[in-house]
Amino acid sequence: MKDLLNDPRFALSEPGVFRFADYATDLSTEKDKKELKERLEKDRERIADRQELLYASGTHSLLLIFQAMDAAGKDSAIRHVMSGVNPQGVRVWSFKAPSTLERSHDFLWRHYQAVPERGHIGIHNRSHYEEVLVTKVHPEYIVGQRIPSIDTVGAITEGFWEERYAAIRAWEQQLAQSGTAIMKFYLHMSKAAQKARFLERIDDPKKNWKFNADDVKERGHWEEYMQAYEQAIGATAAPHAPWYIVPADDQWETRAIVGRLVRERLEAMRLATPAMPSEEQTQLAAAREQLMRESDSR
Amino acid sequence: MKDLLNDPRFALSEPGVFRFADYATDLSTEKDKKELKERLEKDRERIADRQELLYASGTHSLLLIFQAMDAAGKDSAIRHVMSGVNPQGVRVWSFKAPSTLERSHDFLWRHYQAVPERGHIGIHNRSHYEEVLVTKVHPEYIVGQRIPSIDTVGAITEGFWEERYAAIRAWEQQLAQSGTAIMKFYLHMSKAAQKARFLERIDDPKKNWKFNADDVKERGHWEEYMQAYEQAIGATAAPHAPWYIVPADDQWETRAIVGRLVRERLEAMRLATPAMPSEEQTQLAAAREQLMRESDSR
Repeated sequence: MKDLLNDPRFALSEPGVFRFADYATDLSTEKDKKELKERLEKDRERIADRQELLYASGTHSLLLIFQAMDAAGKDSAIRHVMSGVNPQGVRVWSFKAPSTLERSHDFLWRHYQAVPERGHIGIHNRSHYEEVLVTKVHPEYIVGQRIPSIDTVGAITEGFWEERYAAIRAWEQQLAQSGTAIMKFYLHMSKAAQKARFLERIDDPKKNWKFNADDVKERGHWEEYMQAYEQAIGATAAPHAPWYIVPADDQWETRAIVGRLVRERLEAMRLATPAMPSEEQTQLAAAREQLMRESDSR
Repeated sequence: MKDLLNDPRFALSEPGVFRFADYATDLSTEKDKKELKERLEKDRERIADRQELLYASGTHSLLLIFQAMDAAGKDSAIRHVMSGVNPQGVRVWSFKAPSTLERSHDFLWRHYQAVPERGHIGIHNRSHYEEVLVTKVHPEYIVGQRIPSIDTVGAITEGFWEERYAAIRAWEQQLAQSGTAIMKFYLHMSKAAQKARFLERIDDPKKNWKFNADDVKERGHWEEYMQAYEQAIGATAAPHAPWYIVPADDQWETRAIVGRLVRERLEAMRLATPAMPSEEQTQLAAAREQLMRESDSR
């Protein structure tokens, strides 16, 4: 694999019309699982090294956003790509249905609080994008947010969604300007693959806990979700906040591609161990002297 | 090594008089670094496995508190013991000097928000204990908290600290009752070892960023800190929230002991993959049927 960050098979970094049909859910039929694992392992080590530098330099942060239909492998991609990184520098936020308090704020409020601070990697497992996805498929959720003048489903116009896309674009731009690198992953799984994974969760008692009967209900809205995703992705792809459409029918392929993309992005960041300003150098020397003068150290 | 959780060389699970002199900063002079590393690696794998079960069962949580003097190895212990665990189930909070907002609340407020939710491991790198440690050595910080009737250093009586210990005990008990297992680690390093590490940070340009000239100033208060720690540890050790006094003059020894203790604690928790209630079993069957009826899956 060559440089993937700008590979048109995955990367979308300009706004415009976007269609899933142009992207694969599976790269190739012949896969070498062992090779994919080894490649991921190497990328993971480089991610861990690079994260230390990110932490030490304390100037930038990295925000990874994961979106997908149920069972596409978000959780396992996060686990396989990010295990091995110092947990002190990584924080994962799994966004579930908003609380009453969260719904009483504007839609970016709870996500803003989860932005990674300088030196850190923040992972959003689901994100503010749900606010133009699940809410688009179920507009009654928007009514429940009690936004002024949006008191019926009929009041939600196309302009309402355009405003949300614009708000998302503005927010992400502001984050990027302040030093946050943003990568947005859509794990692109076929409807048939979801069916197979649901059946596995139903049939394997050890996987039952991952399954929720409502998941099948949401699957009933598959086409609406695809449309909402296509619009949201097309409206919010940007050079400073690209979307990556990652094939997700084979989980090891997904993990290997995500790992590779994250590693490449971290390595593309200009990071350096902070040099000491000269006045602090003087303080260091003074501290050294003071330590050497001690006589009572045990 | 046999079961370390109740080993009197490290564990303190009853309140009472506590003296550092009774605990080693170094277990033995002859160490096999390779063996320590291998042992840690094995414990780390078992921690990762056990964390998955903790996450799936969703009934308990684990709170790990790290306290120590500067350069005792808190950060590196956290990194070495917890890297490899799924970051989705672990969150590290590094508590620095409180903000103006935080100081405008009671002293447990900001720490309460960092308690791990069910299924999660929370790591506090420094903690609410600083409120009976650094504030005891520098009582002017307490005055800065604008607590009613505490407007001079002279107003801070022994009773004030007793109240804080009692508040900590009550809080930790409540957390334990609600399903949070608590482990409190003091990394026990000699004053001589700190000197050596400070000099290393001063002399190695790559480590300069870890050093702060104020660290030497705090070292000047070493005896006061030891006293504050002895009182705080003695006052807050409890069966549901034991302190572990971990030798910290050798970093691989520290990491191996912490790893072993965390692994043993996780394995001592009664965790089980949640069984499906029978009504949900029925839903599963219905979901299965619905999936099988589909004809249009691509």
